[in-house]
Amino acid sequence: MLGLMQEWPLLCHKLIDNAERQHGVREIVSRSIEGPIVRTTYADIHRRALKVAQRLERDGYGLGDRIATLAWNTARHIEAWYGIMGIGAIYHTLNPRLFPEQIVWIMNHAEDKAVFVDLTFLPLIEKIAGAVKSLKQVIVLTDKAHMPQTTLPNVVAYEDWLDEADGDFAWKTFDEGTAAGMCYTSGTTGDPKGVVYSHRSNVLHAMIAAMPDAMGLSSRDTILPVVPMFHANAWGLGQSGPMIGAKLVMPGCKMDGASIYELLDTEKVTFSAAVPTVWMMLLQHLEETGKKLPHLNKVVIGGSSCPRAIMTKFQQNYDVQVIHAWGMTEMSPLGTLCTLKPDYAGLEGEARLDVQQKQGYPPFGVEMKVTDDDNNAQPWDGKTFGRLKVRGPAVARAYYGGAGPEQFDEDGWFDTGDVAHIDAGGYMQITDRAKDVIKSGGEWISTIDLENLAVGHPDVAEAAAIGVHHSKWGERPLLVVVRKPGKEPSKADILEFMDGKVAKWWMPDDVAFVGEIPHTATGKIQKITLRQQFKDYRLPTD
Amino acid sequence: MLGLMQEWPLLCHKLIDNAERQHGVREIVSRSIEGPIVRTTYADIHRRALKVAQRLERDGYGLGDRIATLAWNTARHIEAWYGIMGIGAIYHTLNPRLFPEQIVWIMNHAEDKAVFVDLTFLPLIEKIAGAVKSLKQVIVLTDKAHMPQTTLPNVVAYEDWLDEADGDFAWKTFDEGTAAGMCYTSGTTGDPKGVVYSHRSNVLHAMIAAMPDAMGLSSRDTILPVVPMFHANAWGLGQSGPMIGAKLVMPGCKMDGASIYELLDTEKVTFSAAVPTVWMMLLQHLEETGKKLPHLNKVVIGGSSCPRAIMTKFQQNYDVQVIHAWGMTEMSPLGTLCTLKPDYAGLEGEARLDVQQKQGYPPFGVEMKVTDDDNNAQPWDGKTFGRLKVRGPAVARAYYGGAGPEQFDEDGWFDTGDVAHIDAGGYMQITDRAKDVIKSGGEWISTIDLENLAVGHPDVAEAAAIGVHHSKWGERPLLVVVRKPGKEPSKADILEFMDGKVAKWWMPDDVAFVGEIPHTATGKIQKITLRQQFKDYRLPTD
Repeated sequence: MLGLMQEWPLLCHKLIDNAERQHGVREIVSRSIEGPIVRTTYADIHRRALKVAQRLERDGYGLGDRIATLAWNTARHIEAWYGIMGIGAIYHTLNPRLFPEQIVWIMNHAEDKAVFVDLTFLPLIEKIAGAVKSLKQVIVLTDKAHMPQTTLPNVVAYEDWLDEADGDFAWKTFDEGTAAGMCYTSGTTGDPKGVVYSHRSNVLHAMIAAMPDAMGLSSRDTILPVVPMFHANAWGLGQSGPMIGAKLVMPGCKMDGASIYELLDTEKVTFSAAVPTVWMMLLQHLEETGKKLPHLNKVVIGGSSCPRAIMTKFQQNYDVQVIHAWGMTEMSPLGTLCTLKPDYAGLEGEARLDVQQKQGYPPFGVEMKVTDDDNNAQPWDGKTFGRLKVRGPAVARAYYGGAGPEQFDEDGWFDTGDVAHIDAGGYMQITDRAKDVIKSGGEWISTIDLENLAVGHPDVAEAAAIGVHHSKWGERPLLVVVRKPGKEPSKADILEFMDGKVAKWWMPDDVAFVGEIPHTATGKIQKITLRQQFKDYRLPTD
Repeated sequence: MLGLMQEWPLLCHKLIDNAERQHGVREIVSRSIEGPIVRTTYADIHRRALKVAQRLERDGYGLGDRIATLAWNTARHIEAWYGIMGIGAIYHTLNPRLFPEQIVWIMNHAEDKAVFVDLTFLPLIEKIAGAVKSLKQVIVLTDKAHMPQTTLPNVVAYEDWLDEADGDFAWKTFDEGTAAGMCYTSGTTGDPKGVVYSHRSNVLHAMIAAMPDAMGLSSRDTILPVVPMFHANAWGLGQSGPMIGAKLVMPGCKMDGASIYELLDTEKVTFSAAVPTVWMMLLQHLEETGKKLPHLNKVVIGGSSCPRAIMTKFQQNYDVQVIHAWGMTEMSPLGTLCTLKPDYAGLEGEARLDVQQKQGYPPFGVEMKVTDDDNNAQPWDGKTFGRLKVRGPAVARAYYGGAGPEQFDEDGWFDTGDVAHIDAGGYMQITDRAKDVIKSGGEWISTIDLENLAVGHPDVAEAAAIGVHHSKWGERPLLVVVRKPGKEPSKADILEFMDGKVAKWWMPDDVAFVGEIPHTATGKIQKITLRQQFKDYRLPTD
């Protein structure tokens, strides 16, 4: 027997419709690429998104077409998203931080038919457009006055293009399982893999993200999404924001401490989200200028593990609550958030930070477990680590084109490629990437723990732990270290510093000093390269 | 093109699974029908709900079977709900406040096969069981020690029945559109009509209800659902609570001021929800005893319009935020909540109360409009009223068995039967029931406004406005008044008091004094009866 409730498919245009209807006057403030701060409203954005949809349809785009965006966080980017989704086409956010050849590969793989591009990235598109066979049109997110000379064919200024539509248009409707968006992951190995969001997953994710124990977003919030829309949907803020009618402040291309501070201050931002690097720059700016953060209530910090010092400063010096979070492009992206359950709500100082150093627990709509190599679920004891697997309505069930099938279980779990443990309170902490973990005599050693420990030494600039061949144990840890300029710590100095702070059998068998550790385009340590570099290394213990 | 996101149907058992996994230690505190306060946890409830499911299946129940509950808010009632839903059967909450013959009618219409019944209502079931042809089994929500003598066949004590299951059971899975629950509306006219909730609608409603701008529920809350589970799913709290892992305090059968206060105080309740009558009793108790409410943060008040005095006292005397709300059984039930948009967030005192007197605005997931008799949408100007129509994933698309088809539009809107206006800020205010509104010369007059005004007269105990025949205007208002004991206000006194406070043409053409105004079983004024009583009334103006 079926329930007798209305058909009301979870379609993304309903998010912006709700914003327009209930919060039409609320402002969206953007730092434009042209320079000035631009103020608009949900009512405006809604009307202009309808024009985007109308115009795209007139240009021949429709259901299932991939339309790329190569743009910063601005109101125009939001309009483009909703306009694209509103005809059943698929927004495909491109990460400009990738190498041009990667972007070409991704656009060809996705068969993008058009691209909305910021002025910043027009030179990049000019360089690569010829190599993208499917690309028919380039829409530059500016007006006629700011439109530069370009050698590209089929290029148009967004505002001109939009002016040819009157907005008298109705969103298309379709099944909620229809693709809405696309984002490629930049793995450290192999080709990028495409994640395809559905309307249903985007809407459910928007609801999940806004919940009180997740980000806790209200119409009374002013949200500054520093995390880019091309970085896993700005962690859902481009959808949660309109859904609840919060004022949005879009930072454009300026992410330095002074620029972010200016927006936080003048727009009275109450909530923001970014990677640790951004917050480091902001905190440095505050320390240099002696400025305060009287309006800001909460920041979500994710993308990589949040250093304790950032948490301490935000909470103790500026009275801003930190929510440590973890997610993945494949998860839309929210996985866990470190908000405090009542058992921990009374904690203060270091005891509170001890909990907050963990990545937190999943909201309703995300399930997680850690397993050993044989897929046996491991106990939630806060120390037994294993492969972190997740499940939920906003978690990928496959990559576009069927890449990486080994990451998807038969019973519906996605293998995140992370290694983690979960404590009795349900809080998860990432300890490693699965491919980086060191397997010594059948037991796992966390490289992240070793690295975090090693960089605590005052003379160490950076450290990477990798497994190298050992005839008895299979692998044993080697610590690769970059010394601080002018400092000359020895192997013995470093090992002595680490001794007693990790299990005896976790201690590196050797320390190798290098001038530089290789990094990916997004700043992660390239362990693959490092392992390659040290593949014939003979440990003194072997 | 479809999105590549996981199949993860929105099934109600996932709510209690999440509670068990992430919030297993959290308490559920019940005032038991046997007397003492009983403490349990989500882990316990989850295990016992699995036993209910296992036991029901063993007794031959399955997908689509209707299993009634005739019970107060207790942990056992929650277990029964999740156990029933967990095999794809349908919980059917019966309202014990209805007349026995109505309950018989409803149970026969739903074809209930079994009933979970509190000790309180066993005599009622004994009286009516014979008249319910489909009923095979009565499960009394108690243990052997408290099991009374009964003449019923096929009756068992819940705890004995449960002891025969070991809980080694997996929830059944099925499409999220599958029916999960059922509740009949007690209209003032005609037969009761059955609303059939789906798993999807219940889960989405749980999410909608918990949002920061709706009820704003967190794992750190302690929730006291005074509103009964048989009153439109306890306004969703039996689902939102487990979803977010909040501590639940279940009041059992004691809803008087002293009993509610005791729970608020000893369990440190932070959030509660009830109809105005309950709050009136609580406030009276507080005033008599001089007690305070240091833990309580928010109360949701709905079911009928909340008197301003209740709001004032909660907010000014006890620092408790009031959320005025409106909903219907057909809406799962939330429709609107009067939380403050940023434009109003700074208001204080009377200006704030003016906004809060409205029923509020719908969260994402509920759409609303007001229309005239020709289905033309009316402006949102805070004065033009019309029929209130709603749409959403947790709004009924039909009644069970196809009753009342005229309430459902071709374009998917449900006609609430209420008359309301919506202001420019999106806030809705109910002005009447559609069948009660007075139509004078083609224009509508709100009876609720007239009544609210009339009861402001110090000598008026109760007032009802109805339309009576007028040869020129079709209908004109007659005010029916019950005087306060020992008071003798005249027609002229009352009309003089009202004069200037409503539009001239809204003023009643006459006032009739009566000893009593008829009410329904649920306390609403029986306007139908009243109209019948005055159908031949000759207005002095005619």
